Amino acid sequence: MSYKKFDQADLEVIKNIIKDDERILYAENINEEYSHDELGGAQSYPDVVVKATSAEEISEIMKYAYENNIPVTPRGAGTGLVGSSVAIEHGIMIDSSLMNHILELDEENLTITVEPGVLLMELAAYVEDHDFFYPPDPGEKSATIGGNISTNAGGMRAVKYGVTRDYVRGLEVVLPNGKIVEFGGKVVKNSSGYSLKDLMIGSEGTLGFITKATLKLLPLPKKAISLLIPFKTLKEAIDTVPLIIKSKAIPTAIEFMQREVIIDAEEYLGKKFPDSQSDAYLLLKFDGNSIEEIEADYDKVAKLCLEAGALDVLISDTEEREESIWKARGAFLEAIKGSTTDMDEVDMVVPRNKVNEMVEYLHNLHNEVDIRIKSFGHAGDGNLHSYILKDDLSQEEFEKRMAEAMEKIYEKAAQLGGKVSGEHGIGFAKKPYLRESLDPETVELMSGIKKAFDPKNILNPHKVFQS
Amino acid sequence: MSYKKFDQADLEVIKNIIKDDERILYAENINEEYSHDELGGAQSYPDVVVKATSAEEISEIMKYAYENNIPVTPRGAGTGLVGSSVAIEHGIMIDSSLMNHILELDEENLTITVEPGVLLMELAAYVEDHDFFYPPDPGEKSATIGGNISTNAGGMRAVKYGVTRDYVRGLEVVLPNGKIVEFGGKVVKNSSGYSLKDLMIGSEGTLGFITKATLKLLPLPKKAISLLIPFKTLKEAIDTVPLIIKSKAIPTAIEFMQREVIIDAEEYLGKKFPDSQSDAYLLLKFDGNSIEEIEADYDKVAKLCLEAGALDVLISDTEEREESIWKARGAFLEAIKGSTTDMDEVDMVVPRNKVNEMVEYLHNLHNEVDIRIKSFGHAGDGNLHSYILKDDLSQEEFEKRMAEAMEKIYEKAAQLGGKVSGEHGIGFAKKPYLRESLDPETVELMSGIKKAFDPKNILNPHKVFQS
Repeated sequence: MSYKKFDQADLEVIKNIIKDDERILYAENINEEYSHDELGGAQSYPDVVVKATSAEEISEIMKYAYENNIPVTPRGAGTGLVGSSVAIEHGIMIDSSLMNHILELDEENLTITVEPGVLLMELAAYVEDHDFFYPPDPGEKSATIGGNISTNAGGMRAVKYGVTRDYVRGLEVVLPNGKIVEFGGKVVKNSSGYSLKDLMIGSEGTLGFITKATLKLLPLPKKAISLLIPFKTLKEAIDTVPLIIKSKAIPTAIEFMQREVIIDAEEYLGKKFPDSQSDAYLLLKFDGNSIEEIEADYDKVAKLCLEAGALDVLISDTEEREESIWKARGAFLEAIKGSTTDMDEVDMVVPRNKVNEMVEYLHNLHNEVDIRIKSFGHAGDGNLHSYILKDDLSQEEFEKRMAEAMEKIYEKAAQLGGKVSGEHGIGFAKKPYLRESLDPETVELMSGIKKAFDPKNILNPHKVFQS
Repeated sequence: MSYKKFDQADLEVIKNIIKDDERILYAENINEEYSHDELGGAQSYPDVVVKATSAEEISEIMKYAYENNIPVTPRGAGTGLVGSSVAIEHGIMIDSSLMNHILELDEENLTITVEPGVLLMELAAYVEDHDFFYPPDPGEKSATIGGNISTNAGGMRAVKYGVTRDYVRGLEVVLPNGKIVEFGGKVVKNSSGYSLKDLMIGSEGTLGFITKATLKLLPLPKKAISLLIPFKTLKEAIDTVPLIIKSKAIPTAIEFMQREVIIDAEEYLGKKFPDSQSDAYLLLKFDGNSIEEIEADYDKVAKLCLEAGALDVLISDTEEREESIWKARGAFLEAIKGSTTDMDEVDMVVPRNKVNEMVEYLHNLHNEVDIRIKSFGHAGDGNLHSYILKDDLSQEEFEKRMAEAMEKIYEKAAQLGGKVSGEHGIGFAKKPYLRESLDPETVELMSGIKKAFDPKNILNPHKVFQS
């Protein structure tokens, strides 16, 4: 691929489109943070950053970039972990963070329409204020909705409520050639041609720029209760999960955590977790419209856990306690990051009855490769987050051992019927692992789709499956 | 497009692959029913019908067809309404009806894996016997699961539970070139490249042949109650629906029906409906794990309906009554078909607060175009089924008036933010209307995707968006 190098003349065109120099960052004015995402594995500066405010602006920029063969990288809040929003080929970065307006709450259709730069925490607060509920709940609340859609973000409530894909009804998209199109709409059912909306979801900004999203809402559940359940060992804790699933109680979330990660979080937040005496915990949540409605379920699960070896069942039914527990859970990534010098992540997903086999494998790997690995995650949906820590290893030694560990982890995940990424996406960092896990025929299909959307390959090149 | 004409030599190759002549129908041995689907609008015979029993057989046939440029048409139970499974270019028809095995019920992952020829009613009965629940519930229970996936079938429970797409976790697919691939799997979350699984869903057999599906199950709700609510007018009935949605009670289903259709069903089934005194009815269902859990919801909705002008609220809480009501509802299509000489259907979907505007439009259209139109459908999800009846019109006059009516209906649906098909698909019959409703850019994208999967255009040509 050979792209036009972005130059002063291009900048003048961009200025003419945007008509507001404060929304254009060029050369040395580009903040360092635009050169990487949250984990920082991939680093590369764009030539220019444009803070767009409308689909029309993005359309004009894309048209110009398309005609002139200039690469474009979409960016939300930069909270990604795999480099999806890093401008590998430089060129133009379009930042959606100023497109942060909630456009319409439609109570008759139970939908909300938002711009892509609205943050998840803003959306969640807004709909709750109106007694509605947007279930997708990734740990990172300051991600944008556009980013969440682009990675098909999952989060903690997937056990009961599914993932972002399940809540996207319609998208407005600027295609690589600048055309503005709409996929889906407010309709509840749709069988009118290929679902381009579903193709956009999870495509990590490689097929089009999302400029508007219509999302499905639910009525806000009126009651929630969490159970924090200590176990002697992690194995015992996770062995309980298939029993919970089989019991047909449907918790909102089933998370697992280990003492060492809880202690990291306590240090990071400067706040005590309700309990950190035991080696391993399950954290469950139940929600519904009345205590009676959820009582039977959580009673059954509590009993089942005690029979399976749980040391105790701590019920959290006050708002303060709820907040302290889930805030700690939400801080795990940052807390682990703060406990080491550098790290990289694995976001594998396995069938949920294989979580224990995977966790045991990770435990042994720690010894085999001699590198620290901390894990936590969504025991109820099979999505594990493992962090491989540099600590005081040399950069060279870290990279060597990390590569070895990752290779083994993804191989094991594939053996168990798992996938490379549950919710963080593939981006730039996980490409080799995705390519290894797919048969060449599937990579060929993805390439063909990319070509149909972006024949000049100007939108977010080198991502997902591209070499 | 020019295809090789299927001949005796090709037949020998097929015989060699299948090794069982009883599973091959050729020339005059092909039953008439293989030349059309349920509605019979499109008619064309395949040159050969192969009743496949494995993905490997289908793979070998596809490979041969691909190399020799012979068109292939996938077929399930032939219950489609828009001609998706009609062999427009003749060639090979692959019938999946012998691939009707339930392969695995995985209680730890809450999934069931089936062959594509399993019928919806077989799947529903099997999982209920095991205390599980497969929510998608189209009226046509003798459709195959492969067909349901290919049209992203919706059904009556979409208000609460969503559509087929929401329950497909993984697919095994034979591509047009004969390669067998897997999209998705048993995993609950997945963000590992473009979602080819979601692209397959609703693609009406144009991108690949589904040979296996892993579906998500839910625990079976223990209680269900239906409310049959008579109104003086259809307008009053449907005006109540947005109020129900806004009330945040979540019924499983909200159907509307008119006396004339109920009477058709009574005649067709030879059985009385619980009430047919009033002009219009809403039929609601609520489900949950205890009467207490659903009582608050249906009480609230019953009151709300009475305040909005309902004449009565008939509660159906016995199994017999439930069956008689929903059986009648399930027979509407057949009953209307039996009440006229010929008909064609419209399966539009509009945002759910626009149903009344659409129904009123249909009512006036009846007079404007002077053709009988009967409608029923899913008031709760905006998906309306309208049937345009021939009665004693001449074929020519019927076609003329029908074309005029359809043109107007789809135009109105588009104005209201609706789509051409909610759940029946586009197939052969609705192509012109789909093309009219999409911008050329979107048709171009669909063409590009089709090319990536099927560069020789041998799989189910002339369907969905192709001219």
